[in-house]
Amino acid sequence: MAQNIYDDPTFFEAYAKFRRSAIGLDGAPEWAALRAMLPPMAGRRVVDLGCGYGWFCRWAREAGAAQVLGLDLSGRMLAKARADTADPAIRYQRTDLDRLELPSATFDLAFSSLALHYVADFDRLVRVVRQALVPGARFVFSIEHPMFMAPSRPGWVTLADGRRVWPLDAYHREGERTTDWLVEGVVKHHRTLGTTLNTLIGQGFAIRRVEEWSPTPDQIAAIPEISQELDRPIFLLVAAELGV
Amino acid sequence: MAQNIYDDPTFFEAYAKFRRSAIGLDGAPEWAALRAMLPPMAGRRVVDLGCGYGWFCRWAREAGAAQVLGLDLSGRMLAKARADTADPAIRYQRTDLDRLELPSATFDLAFSSLALHYVADFDRLVRVVRQALVPGARFVFSIEHPMFMAPSRPGWVTLADGRRVWPLDAYHREGERTTDWLVEGVVKHHRTLGTTLNTLIGQGFAIRRVEEWSPTPDQIAAIPEISQELDRPIFLLVAAELGV
Repeated sequence: MAQNIYDDPTFFEAYAKFRRSAIGLDGAPEWAALRAMLPPMAGRRVVDLGCGYGWFCRWAREAGAAQVLGLDLSGRMLAKARADTADPAIRYQRTDLDRLELPSATFDLAFSSLALHYVADFDRLVRVVRQALVPGARFVFSIEHPMFMAPSRPGWVTLADGRRVWPLDAYHREGERTTDWLVEGVVKHHRTLGTTLNTLIGQGFAIRRVEEWSPTPDQIAAIPEISQELDRPIFLLVAAELGV
Repeated sequence: MAQNIYDDPTFFEAYAKFRRSAIGLDGAPEWAALRAMLPPMAGRRVVDLGCGYGWFCRWAREAGAAQVLGLDLSGRMLAKARADTADPAIRYQRTDLDRLELPSATFDLAFSSLALHYVADFDRLVRVVRQALVPGARFVFSIEHPMFMAPSRPGWVTLADGRRVWPLDAYHREGERTTDWLVEGVVKHHRTLGTTLNTLIGQGFAIRRVEEWSPTPDQIAAIPEISQELDRPIFLLVAAELGV
């Protein structure tokens, strides 16, 4: 079972203050890049793996999706999602992605934003997603970039010569990473980029696009400290398509 | 025009001492992983982009390739390749990969080992390779991994707490990297992993496998210092297939 850190009261309260929590998709700097990788929404049956407050579920419906299923492990987040949603075509369901089960050939799009790095068994997850999609369907997701997740001690380091660097090590040591983020002891699962892509390919997905998000000049002008994301990739965005 | 560093006498002499130069493919730790990504050689028409001493060209023929064309910018390396090759089905040709031109629909496999990071315009190169391949053909290559190439000052750093880390910065600043390797001022071209894969996908290639090579336990037992390659990815190996 995955750690349910988003229901930790301290974590929940801190997370709620992020722009992506307070104002939704447009508060996430990588949203425009992720949106550009999505197929047209009209008529699609969508599943959102790790839907949080339901921002994407509501956006998908407004963009024309036929039905949206939002899944999350956090009861607190789902409560807010339900409170903020008045649309019978959107359903929310409490789900541990490590134990995900989905009906067969039911969805045209599987979407996930910054949730799959909490999943221990990515191969199992991709298998479940695959059988839930129809041929030609898309699987579009973002995760923390493996370079961001890999280090034994993630955090910028300033060297004697003034360089601020991201201290990469342990890249090929896949598995659990426990970090302190908002609260102590957040458990994530590091996989190399190769493992992520080869798992998808091995399950019959064609890789359509791989984006290592970086901030735009406009974003840097608005939020100068975001320029640090030019130095290391923080998010990995993948668009895959199930073979027909 | 690409820098012709391999014809620098000091570089050439130092490079000749590497195991991969002296004993060939089996002297390259990533060869087994790269070989596993190749299609069966029987009957294939092969082009090797950056063939060096011709080790791969001769291996491909021994493995059953019908014809092999080896291309390299280094006259010194081609002279040795020709001296070591007695096989009329292998041809060598001096070629600047930045100005590569190839006949149309002529090859079943394009191969390249650790050469394409010297190419300034990867999009142009992929376009030329694409039109030279027949439908269903493979493009299999290794390059220095973008994480290895990106840093403003590549080189292990030992931090105050004892961690030895790879000092990642400048990842999203694509373009020229000048490093001192064997001689001063070796010019390479950094591209993100996303750019490399999306360029291939955009030209009609399907990504078949992405390997971020890491040493095996046997390799570490034989050459203990190679264990540092568990901490950062040094090589990126890609197998792509042209759509039919």
